[in-house]
Amino acid sequence: MSSTDTYGTESHKKRAMDWFSRLRDDLCMALELIETDVEGPNGSSDLEPGVFQRKSWQRPAEDGTDGGGGTMAVMRGRVLEKAGVNISEVKGEFSPEFRKNIPGAEADPRFWAAGISVVIHPRSPLVPAAHMNTRMIVTQKAWFGGGGDLTPVFPDDEETALFHRAYKDACDRFDGSYYPKYKKACDEYFYLPHRDEPRGVGGIFVDNLNSGDWESDFGFIQEIGRSFMGIYPQLVRRAMDLPWTAAQKQAQLIKRGRYVEFNLLHDRGTLFGIKTGGNTEAILMSMPPEVHWP
Amino acid sequence: MSSTDTYGTESHKKRAMDWFSRLRDDLCMALELIETDVEGPNGSSDLEPGVFQRKSWQRPAEDGTDGGGGTMAVMRGRVLEKAGVNISEVKGEFSPEFRKNIPGAEADPRFWAAGISVVIHPRSPLVPAAHMNTRMIVTQKAWFGGGGDLTPVFPDDEETALFHRAYKDACDRFDGSYYPKYKKACDEYFYLPHRDEPRGVGGIFVDNLNSGDWESDFGFIQEIGRSFMGIYPQLVRRAMDLPWTAAQKQAQLIKRGRYVEFNLLHDRGTLFGIKTGGNTEAILMSMPPEVHWP
Repeated sequence: MSSTDTYGTESHKKRAMDWFSRLRDDLCMALELIETDVEGPNGSSDLEPGVFQRKSWQRPAEDGTDGGGGTMAVMRGRVLEKAGVNISEVKGEFSPEFRKNIPGAEADPRFWAAGISVVIHPRSPLVPAAHMNTRMIVTQKAWFGGGGDLTPVFPDDEETALFHRAYKDACDRFDGSYYPKYKKACDEYFYLPHRDEPRGVGGIFVDNLNSGDWESDFGFIQEIGRSFMGIYPQLVRRAMDLPWTAAQKQAQLIKRGRYVEFNLLHDRGTLFGIKTGGNTEAILMSMPPEVHWP
Repeated sequence: MSSTDTYGTESHKKRAMDWFSRLRDDLCMALELIETDVEGPNGSSDLEPGVFQRKSWQRPAEDGTDGGGGTMAVMRGRVLEKAGVNISEVKGEFSPEFRKNIPGAEADPRFWAAGISVVIHPRSPLVPAAHMNTRMIVTQKAWFGGGGDLTPVFPDDEETALFHRAYKDACDRFDGSYYPKYKKACDEYFYLPHRDEPRGVGGIFVDNLNSGDWESDFGFIQEIGRSFMGIYPQLVRRAMDLPWTAAQKQAQLIKRGRYVEFNLLHDRGTLFGIKTGGNTEAILMSMPPEVHWP
C-alpha cells in the first residue's frame, strides 16, 4: 500500500466523507419516492408513506477527546418496512487486541474511518432485502472497502441477473478482473456455514482496496454506491405492487432469521463494532423489524 | 480434579444420561399439564393445548464412527409459545483450535459430553421466559456444569425472589458458599455489554464443578434440575391467566431481541456448538418464536 502522504490524505478524508453524506441524501430521497409511488397492496394499506428520520450520535474517543460520530437515518415505510442509511466518521485508537489484525495499526494504533451503510428490509416478501456499504479507513496505511448484495426470499433469475449486471458494469469500468474476484468474495463472505446456506444471491464484496491510485479507487467506491442507487429502487418497483400470500410472508419472517444469525454470528463489521464499543443502535439497525424462528 | 478412574467413570456417564432423560420426561409432562390447566386469555384462545414433539439427531464423529446424538423435544403451546427440552450424549475429538481451551483436552482430544438444555418462551408477556441446563463432560478430566435463570419482560420482585429462593435452597443443601458464588457468576454471564443490560433477573450459573466427590456433585446437578421443575411451572401458573395489553406484548417481542443478541453474540454454548459443527436445529431451538427489532 502507498504512503498516507499520497493515499488517504486529509483532503481525501474530506472528499470521501462528503461523498458518503451526499450518497446518503440521494439514497434517502430515492427510497422515499418509492413510498409515495407505490400502488397495490403496499400502497392501499392504512400505512402512510415512510419518511427518513435522522438521529446523530457521538463517539467518545479512548482518551476522552472527540472520537467523531455518525448519523443514522431510519425509515419505517409501507413498502420498505425498515430502511436504515447510516453514515459515520470516527477516529481514535485500536485496543491492543485488535491492533495485530488491522493493517498499519500494529506500530501506531491511531485510526480514522468513515463510511456509509445501508440495510433495507421490505414489507413484501416478493421484494428483495438489500445491503450496501462503502468505507475508507486510514491507519498508517489507507484503504477502501465495500460492496452490495441482495437477499430475496424467493430468488428470481431475472432479478438476480439485473442486480449482478449492475455491479459487473460498475466493476468493468475500472478493472476487468474486479467483478469475478469480488463476486466470489461476496459469495464466500455472505454464507452461513451452520445452515450450509448462502445469505442471499450475492453481489460484490471488496476489502483492503488500495491500488496505489486513490482517485481511481475512490471512483470505484463511488460507483458501488451509484450502482446500488441505480438498480435497487428499480428492483423494488418491479415487485412492490404484487400481492403476496400469508405463506410467502411467513417464509420472509423465517428468512430474516437467517439474516439475524449471519449478522450476529458471522458479520465482521457487526462483531467488530460490538466488541470495540461502537454505537449499538447504529450497528444493530441492520436487524430486521420482525423475525420468526419457527 | 480427580482421576477419571474415580470421577467420570462409565457408570457415572450412564447414570448422568439416565437422569437427563428422566428429567426431560418429567419436565415435558409438567409443562404439558400447564397447557391443559390454563384459563384466562391463553386458555380461551383458539389454540389447542401444546404437546411436545420429539425428534432425534445423530452426530457423525470426526473419524466417521458413531459420535452420539440427541433428542429435541419441542412444544408449540398456547401458554408456552415455544418450549424446547433437548438432551444429548455426544463423543468425539476436539479440533486443534479448541483443545487448548478445554480442561484435560490438550494431551488427548477425546471427549464425552451429555446434558439437558431447556429454553421456554411463553406467549404472555407477563409470564417470564426461562432457561435451565445441566451437563457432564469427560476428557482426561471430568466435571459438571449448569444452572437456571429467569428472563421476565417486566421483572416482579416477588417472582424474582421466589425463583432465587428455590436456587438458594438447592445450593444450601450442598454448600453454603455455592449460592452467592453461582448467583454472581450468573449475573456476570447473562449480561449484554453492548446494551449495558442484564439478560434477565439471574439465577445460578455453575461451571467446572468437580469437588472430587462425584456422588455429591451429581446430587447437586440433579437438584438444579429438580429446583427448576419445582419453581418454574409455579411461576408460570402465577401469571398465565392474567390478561395483557398490545403494548406489553410489543415489549416482550423487543425483549426477545435482546435474548437473540445474547445467544448469538455471547453465549458460549451456542457459539461453541455452532463452531464445532453441532446440530444447528437443536442449538438454535433457543431462538424465540417471534421477535421485533423496532
